[in-house]
Amino acid sequence: MRCIKTATASPETVRDALQRPSQKSIETVMGIVTPIIKAVRDEGDEALLRYTHEFEKATSLDSPVLKAPFPPCSMELASETAQAIDITFENIRKFHAAQQESHPLRVETMPGVICSRFSRPIERVGLYVPGGTAVLPSTALMLGVPAMVAGCKTIIIATPPRADGSITPEIVYIAHKIGAQAIVLAGGAQAVAALAYGTQSICKVDKILGPGNQFVTAAKVFVSNDTNAAVSIDMPAGPSELLVIADRKSNPAFVASDLLSQAEHGVDSQVILIAVDLSDAELTAIEDQLSVQAKTLPRAKFIHGSLEHSVTLSVRDIEEAVTLSNQYAPEHLILQIENAEQVVPLIMNAGSIFIGEWAPESVGDYSAGVNHSLPTYGYAKQYSGVSLSSFTKHITSCQLTAQGLRNVGPSVMQLAKTEGLDGHRRAVELRIDYLNENGL
Amino acid sequence: MRCIKTATASPETVRDALQRPSQKSIETVMGIVTPIIKAVRDEGDEALLRYTHEFEKATSLDSPVLKAPFPPCSMELASETAQAIDITFENIRKFHAAQQESHPLRVETMPGVICSRFSRPIERVGLYVPGGTAVLPSTALMLGVPAMVAGCKTIIIATPPRADGSITPEIVYIAHKIGAQAIVLAGGAQAVAALAYGTQSICKVDKILGPGNQFVTAAKVFVSNDTNAAVSIDMPAGPSELLVIADRKSNPAFVASDLLSQAEHGVDSQVILIAVDLSDAELTAIEDQLSVQAKTLPRAKFIHGSLEHSVTLSVRDIEEAVTLSNQYAPEHLILQIENAEQVVPLIMNAGSIFIGEWAPESVGDYSAGVNHSLPTYGYAKQYSGVSLSSFTKHITSCQLTAQGLRNVGPSVMQLAKTEGLDGHRRAVELRIDYLNENGL
Repeated sequence: MRCIKTATASPETVRDALQRPSQKSIETVMGIVTPIIKAVRDEGDEALLRYTHEFEKATSLDSPVLKAPFPPCSMELASETAQAIDITFENIRKFHAAQQESHPLRVETMPGVICSRFSRPIERVGLYVPGGTAVLPSTALMLGVPAMVAGCKTIIIATPPRADGSITPEIVYIAHKIGAQAIVLAGGAQAVAALAYGTQSICKVDKILGPGNQFVTAAKVFVSNDTNAAVSIDMPAGPSELLVIADRKSNPAFVASDLLSQAEHGVDSQVILIAVDLSDAELTAIEDQLSVQAKTLPRAKFIHGSLEHSVTLSVRDIEEAVTLSNQYAPEHLILQIENAEQVVPLIMNAGSIFIGEWAPESVGDYSAGVNHSLPTYGYAKQYSGVSLSSFTKHITSCQLTAQGLRNVGPSVMQLAKTEGLDGHRRAVELRIDYLNENGL
Repeated sequence: MRCIKTATASPETVRDALQRPSQKSIETVMGIVTPIIKAVRDEGDEALLRYTHEFEKATSLDSPVLKAPFPPCSMELASETAQAIDITFENIRKFHAAQQESHPLRVETMPGVICSRFSRPIERVGLYVPGGTAVLPSTALMLGVPAMVAGCKTIIIATPPRADGSITPEIVYIAHKIGAQAIVLAGGAQAVAALAYGTQSICKVDKILGPGNQFVTAAKVFVSNDTNAAVSIDMPAGPSELLVIADRKSNPAFVASDLLSQAEHGVDSQVILIAVDLSDAELTAIEDQLSVQAKTLPRAKFIHGSLEHSVTLSVRDIEEAVTLSNQYAPEHLILQIENAEQVVPLIMNAGSIFIGEWAPESVGDYSAGVNHSLPTYGYAKQYSGVSLSSFTKHITSCQLTAQGLRNVGPSVMQLAKTEGLDGHRRAVELRIDYLNENGL
């Protein structure tokens, strides 16, 4: 990784080092996905199957959906895999169940004016789990468990089938555990369209969540902008990224292992190391660990590509490190520093933080209980990761006593008058007249 | 209003009656706003001023921004207006301050595995307040007060100036009260572009909120899809709508006044009355009140247009009424029924609920304390209205003890193996090896 010392580099050099690799414009991909979406919207199952035959080579498939109850033979797993899924499931369940609001918020803003706010599950959700060559049980867990905890009535997973038309048993096992109604055997824009508009055999959903390639992302954007689809999405998706802040107390082998576990995701992954007051020898120790460990990893090709557009920023103190990290707004932030917990209050922008030497990113990616669906590409400045609230919405309410209306009414009538909305003013006035006329 | 009796009508007739008036496709509007957005993005202040001169006729304007501190002469108000704003401000502040989380969520999912979640303000927000002929202090309050309570560092209001280049004093007064840094003197797509990309004199923001016409909405969609803008938006905006459920205990004059206060918003407003087991005479009483009251209202033209595509559904019982209301997912839901509070738990989809005869919609539109920026067009199925959380995001964290890593590590390593991510597995393994080697 190239190294920039902020003490001697220009502000522009530092700023440029923290730029994300530029993304392909969504417009070019949109041209490819739009006809696919429209075909599935208009033709339904027939178009969906046609694309799955073509893109996934699953030519033997004759139904685009597997409905619950799923056959036991479709979810047979090695016992150690089932156990790892069960433990992970339970940790994610605990953390997301703790996010439930115990009771509605209730505030009496003026005597007799009671304002409330409470949550309701989103009724029907579609969870996109990428697949094909990769097997991604963790994505199914991170989306499915909060949907289950939230109480979504209809949970539909969409994932591309293997060439023989089957789904990896890990996904079916998880779909069963979370109570999913169906698995859509399709990927890409065609799967997103089936979830957004529904087909003859697939129920239309209210929200679509989950990561995916640029075609999936473009399709999610398309349907979320179509008022006829009436569907929302989780957040913009981009390549995964990690920022490690390390000081002299950090273990170079641990630091390198975290950088590498991010870099192995793909060549477009980005890795940033902010080294706080490290000597050249200490910087070299981390570089050496990167080389040694990278050699033993099977995904060396991805790692090499990813590290090419990654960078070490050597800074003077922790304040400077935090300022740069907040500017970058990393998806994952690892604090491999002394008294790491005390730095957390200074972190303003990040998807998820890993505190101290015993919390590698992989524990959050899998089993600790926090969600791994996080904002990338700097969107941690304005988006949260997936949480229980991603599967719920809030409703507010007003309840007034007659005296409450007398208390708040004059302000309502004055503002309605200012805005020239006489019907709004009258709705209050005629009620107050009624109270006066009836001596209430 | 036309009346459909669900007992005798076909299901298709009922379904069609609850269809929203179809929206103009965003694509046609996008063609108009795209060059405007690109001009402001590329040229900055100069393009912004040019559009304001053209569209708002404010040809004397030579700066597109009014920066705080705002001159006292720009916010002189009648004392009754200032008082109404002050009372409303305080009620909104109380209700949104009560939404603050008192402490971070902290869950020990396994011994030594501590998962947390906490909120941070979005640093820079842009609040769009429509203007021109209308004066909309309520919109400035509903967006500005929660932004202030959330602790957003930079709050910028954008609103089109009057033809003389000035801003209505109500908006300046509120901008001052909420601590806004600046008011952008522009409207439409050009204002949205200035907030999204920044200009020479206007700070780029992280999130844009607020209602607007179809050009504003299309511009918000455009910038939220542009990763180079790095900006998010509140929610899709559509025409305002109201659904009233009324039974025999309801006062026909009150019911009619609520229907009319919604209908006066504009010809594209939609109004639905669900009448629970009302006789023909009782239905006629509401119709009569609609006619009598409408005649006295200045915005009769809008009301007439709006009522044309509005409908009364006459149903048998409250369960049927609730089912239809949940299907429609109204922005505003008024329960003018006996024991209205007991029906609230059955409401699954609504923006905001008004409970009982003393809570007309106008109290929520203005001064009660609940927010009036709500999901329209059926989006109450998956979106919440604006709240404190619209101005914050959440960060999660993981902190593990050495024993915590020993507890969760095996599951992490097994899932990483399943997913073929050996770097993820190794990041855990080498830490556990270290613990073992050092007898920890």
